[in-house]
Amino acid sequence: MIKVGIVGGTGYTGVELLRLLAQHPGVALMAITSRQEAGTPVADHFPSLRGAVKLAFSDPADAPLADCDIVFFATPNGVAMGEARALLERGVRIVDLAADFRFRDVAEWEQWYQQKHAAPELLAEAVYGLPEVNRAAIRTARIVANPGCYPTCVQLGFLPLVEANVVDLDHLIADAKSGVSGAGRKAETHILFSEASDNFAAYGVSGHRHWPEIRQGLAQVAKRSIGLTFVPHLTPMIRGIHATLYARVTRAVDFQALYASRFGAEPFVDVLPPGHHPDTRSVRAANLCRIAVHRPHGGDTLVVLSVIDNLVKGAAGQAVQNMNIMFGIDEATGLAQLPVVP
Amino acid sequence: MIKVGIVGGTGYTGVELLRLLAQHPGVALMAITSRQEAGTPVADHFPSLRGAVKLAFSDPADAPLADCDIVFFATPNGVAMGEARALLERGVRIVDLAADFRFRDVAEWEQWYQQKHAAPELLAEAVYGLPEVNRAAIRTARIVANPGCYPTCVQLGFLPLVEANVVDLDHLIADAKSGVSGAGRKAETHILFSEASDNFAAYGVSGHRHWPEIRQGLAQVAKRSIGLTFVPHLTPMIRGIHATLYARVTRAVDFQALYASRFGAEPFVDVLPPGHHPDTRSVRAANLCRIAVHRPHGGDTLVVLSVIDNLVKGAAGQAVQNMNIMFGIDEATGLAQLPVVP
Amino acid sequence: MIKVGIVGGTGYTGVELLRLLAQHPGVALMAITSRQEAGTPVADHFPSLRGAVKLAFSDPADAPLADCDIVFFATPNGVAMGEARALLERGVRIVDLAADFRFRDVAEWEQWYQQKHAAPELLAEAVYGLPEVNRAAIRTARIVANPGCYPTCVQLGFLPLVEANVVDLDHLIADAKSGVSGAGRKAETHILFSEASDNFAAYGVSGHRHWPEIRQGLAQVAKRSIGLTFVPHLTPMIRGIHATLYARVTRAVDFQALYASRFGAEPFVDVLPPGHHPDTRSVRAANLCRIAVHRPHGGDTLVVLSVIDNLVKGAAGQAVQNMNIMFGIDEATGLAQLPVVP
Amino acid sequence: MIKVGIVGGTGYTGVELLRLLAQHPGVALMAITSRQEAGTPVADHFPSLRGAVKLAFSDPADAPLADCDIVFFATPNGVAMGEARALLERGVRIVDLAADFRFRDVAEWEQWYQQKHAAPELLAEAVYGLPEVNRAAIRTARIVANPGCYPTCVQLGFLPLVEANVVDLDHLIADAKSGVSGAGRKAETHILFSEASDNFAAYGVSGHRHWPEIRQGLAQVAKRSIGLTFVPHLTPMIRGIHATLYARVTRAVDFQALYASRFGAEPFVDVLPPGHHPDTRSVRAANLCRIAVHRPHGGDTLVVLSVIDNLVKGAAGQAVQNMNIMFGIDEATGLAQLPVVP
Repeated sequence: MIKVGIVGGTGYTGVELLRLLAQHPGVALMAITSRQEAGTPVADHFPSLRGAVKLAFSDPADAPLADCDIVFFATPNGVAMGEARALLERGVRIVDLAADFRFRDVAEWEQWYQQKHAAPELLAEAVYGLPEVNRAAIRTARIVANPGCYPTCVQLGFLPLVEANVVDLDHLIADAKSGVSGAGRKAETHILFSEASDNFAAYGVSGHRHWPEIRQGLAQVAKRSIGLTFVPHLTPMIRGIHATLYARVTRAVDFQALYASRFGAEPFVDVLPPGHHPDTRSVRAANLCRIAVHRPHGGDTLVVLSVIDNLVKGAAGQAVQNMNIMFGIDEATGLAQLPVVP
Repeated sequence: MIKVGIVGGTGYTGVELLRLLAQHPGVALMAITSRQEAGTPVADHFPSLRGAVKLAFSDPADAPLADCDIVFFATPNGVAMGEARALLERGVRIVDLAADFRFRDVAEWEQWYQQKHAAPELLAEAVYGLPEVNRAAIRTARIVANPGCYPTCVQLGFLPLVEANVVDLDHLIADAKSGVSGAGRKAETHILFSEASDNFAAYGVSGHRHWPEIRQGLAQVAKRSIGLTFVPHLTPMIRGIHATLYARVTRAVDFQALYASRFGAEPFVDVLPPGHHPDTRSVRAANLCRIAVHRPHGGDTLVVLSVIDNLVKGAAGQAVQNMNIMFGIDEATGLAQLPVVP
Repeated sequence: MIKVGIVGGTGYTGVELLRLLAQHPGVALMAITSRQEAGTPVADHFPSLRGAVKLAFSDPADAPLADCDIVFFATPNGVAMGEARALLERGVRIVDLAADFRFRDVAEWEQWYQQKHAAPELLAEAVYGLPEVNRAAIRTARIVANPGCYPTCVQLGFLPLVEANVVDLDHLIADAKSGVSGAGRKAETHILFSEASDNFAAYGVSGHRHWPEIRQGLAQVAKRSIGLTFVPHLTPMIRGIHATLYARVTRAVDFQALYASRFGAEPFVDVLPPGHHPDTRSVRAANLCRIAVHRPHGGDTLVVLSVIDNLVKGAAGQAVQNMNIMFGIDEATGLAQLPVVP
Repeated sequence: MIKVGIVGGTGYTGVELLRLLAQHPGVALMAITSRQEAGTPVADHFPSLRGAVKLAFSDPADAPLADCDIVFFATPNGVAMGEARALLERGVRIVDLAADFRFRDVAEWEQWYQQKHAAPELLAEAVYGLPEVNRAAIRTARIVANPGCYPTCVQLGFLPLVEANVVDLDHLIADAKSGVSGAGRKAETHILFSEASDNFAAYGVSGHRHWPEIRQGLAQVAKRSIGLTFVPHLTPMIRGIHATLYARVTRAVDFQALYASRFGAEPFVDVLPPGHHPDTRSVRAANLCRIAVHRPHGGDTLVVLSVIDNLVKGAAGQAVQNMNIMFGIDEATGLAQLPVVP
């Protein structure tokens, strides 16, 4: 059994991690910490887990995190970087679901996250946890930076095109729509039901932290810099990201075959037959990315549709997938839940 | 392995049965029939099942139903009663998720369902599949009539009061709110998104088919007739039933203790601590009923809150629970999925 | 032109008041105050009002409220009672959309609102602003206590029964369902989109501030005390209240005729034909209450369905209706907007 | 008073036309036809109109359409073209809210709408009813082809760029998101609440009828052909279209000033200040288009955000606006309703 700890865990990423780990046959959940909820049984905070999770939240100071094999950080940005070093020294491996270890460039990180990085030397070591790109490195990583939700959906959608270098890499466009849970379980006015339901809007057009993350990920694959316009939108649904990707064709190939071949062996990426339009619910509550490729009217603009559940393949599910890889067990262990439809 | 067939299965009960059975370790899915979709791979009809269900829908005439150990009818009312006898003669056991075998009284059935019953002798034999009441009889039943969604939620909520005979049984009130999936996957105007969302209304106040079903179930337990006012409401959510039950106290007891004791050993009924208000999402996608008991201002009107997922404990999950009981395996097999929150 | 001021107005009641008053032909909007948003143009705070409302929020200290003919308080409970006296002394009339002047009994108010009342003498003077009951008194009132949303919907539904004394007044039941805007525009976790959508739950079963308000209103009419069980529920829609009311018949009359006659002359109460089920959207964004009366299976339990838009007839619309009455203009002025469907 | 008839009117465009016309001070509603609902009071079909619309649906054969000054066709595609000639001969002017008269090219129309056009000579005469482009021609038109909802939102968004010829007109991209009411009030499975809510998907990527309509409209302005990639998406909200438009800058100008100047005099187009993101609810139930222009990171890709209510500026409201222009009355008459928020 893998001994698992969770730091933070009162938000949506936390409850989703708990849902998945409680059903994972190879995991022993040792501790889950929350300064604010210390002492509260997890099942009181999340009644959906009554009967399934017996733990109470514990104070970070008291939690036996150092005895774990792996600790997940489901914390706000800026927490994991302060606590990682001590855990690593105790031999604990780390998956950070926040952004602390996602960038290669310290200066860029500090610019986008508006704080000093507490462990720049660990940035160099951390592995970006997109298994479809970095599976080998994840296997032996001490720190895995779990990708952001938009970056997972957008990178998987563009990946075959970028690897094959068949589109204009200076002018990629990602029009992305996210369910409201992507904004977290924070008491903020704009994500109230009465604000966000029966409504639709873009946000952050002038700049979003996932923009440099996507560009970095695709640039690593392309071995050159990437031009990207990224527009996120808030969508009145709970879970799900739908990315509609546009790329100008520079070399015509069989795009359907390209995608089918690139992802054929991937357990959690499903390329749909030609003409299909994946909907977000077809992956709801499951660790899956479904992708369809279109070339409307045979023109030179390619349209790729990519969907994930932001809390699963875009967060907790991918974190468990990374854990499975890190510990050498079947990558799909505990991730066999089927999408919930309707 | 239990060899399972499904008749009908293109609706919500069907896709939910498939989701649960595909994850059930003791089941081999042999056939799923649909006249209209014969030949279509199930995963084309329900893209959420791509990769998980390999079967295609088959024509009822061709399907190897007679070779199954059990056949689920996920059909409209009136289908199962016509096909049950032939299957029983071949030794196949049956769970009907529609209403054909739910009533004891043929005349009452024919009045409410507005058709002649095709197999009245099987009504006598059929067992009403509410495990919390009829577990022993289900074990050996050839035909199980899976309860309706409202009746499951309302009966479980009233059960301890009726058994203990501590409230006025002539004037029970059940104010029930159902998610829209309870109306099925039928192309009808009133359940369009643009009609049913951001809206709320009662329906069927003058008479609903679940009213006699609830009365029959409670009367069996009470050994006397039951007076019930039942008002169902359409609620803008996909899954879930919330029943708010009102009963006039005739004998004051420790109601919390009564419920805790009645359901303490039940694997799929969870009595909440005093003062709680269960929400429907705390059981979403899970085979669970959660119940809370209130006595506002210490008055003589008791308020019981009971929630289920109409497609799971109110349909497909309860059907699988019944199957487990019928075949003598652990009642919870394949039903361990945790509620999906948020 | 009636010179109007608004105190507070950054919440849903405020924006709805502004929407209605901006379209009211007899009103000049003089000031709207908000300590927090002082200086911000109203149209920046509520982009829906761009081009229609030119005012900026002003600091309460600077606002020309004393020059107004009427001031609406769209503030949290406890504000109006502190500021009312000074305005009254300047000849300004007041409509309080909060609860400060709703109760006749100071002690009861202080118990339910958990604070000392700042102007108990004004409680005696204030008129409860339900026009269908108190129209004459409203006409000359200096202070109108605008009713709560639930109390409006529930009282209108029970009114004919209570006035005619034809049901058991010791055991009324009001099962009420409210859209989420009823909880206000407050950054609280439980009304986040990801919490409140696709979900349904009761709350406050043990006691809700609208319970004594409803009892007081009905008791005034009945001239005796009222027994009431009141269960509010949070419903995943933005606007709307649906009250399902249960009453035990003590004297059988023609209930449909009773309602038709009682409300026939009311401009904003619509009694539906027998057999109808009003939905909340049939009153959305309009100052209307629609009511239907049922007697299921001819039994002794009456079921009344009553719907309003909580922000209009349940708040801002009723406030404007009260203003119209107070200033002797046509009661329907500025309230002719039709419901928005779909 | 303008004597108005409506042909068809049982759908969403119909009920919205009725809502607007019933509040229009210069209109007398003479007839509304529906073969299927002939004889039914409109207020029975649409309870929201109880008390406001006294008419019953009449059979087209009996309706006094020829006595009207103007007839609106709120019918499926293919109806208006068969009935227009007879009405025109009687001096009745026509606004078709369907697509029969939207194209200049008969062959293209017949290809996209898969039927023979019944009145090709009227195509030449009909005026495309986008007031912001064709106001002068609308004034004297006998037939106005009311634009589609997507085309209204997308054309208004691109208009200043195309007129000024400052972007690459061969590679425009319109990523458009529509509320479900855009699909009409048809009993179809994919727009059921349980299918469309908590879900998001693209559709028609390979070809949508609004694609040629947008290209034609922009080409008329550009006086050259337009290259456009158009991807519509179904969004879980009732009303609203949000178009996110992408264009490659070919000549840098002050884009904010360009938009402000182009639309400054338009009563129903609102250009937001720099940095804003219009949400669909800011125009809900109102005849408005709000637009914001962004140039992310100062790059060469421009992002324009354009929102309308598909049933108002995208259908019924624009139809009334066209009527006002045709009859020489103030263009804003009857269209002053403010957006409904929340």
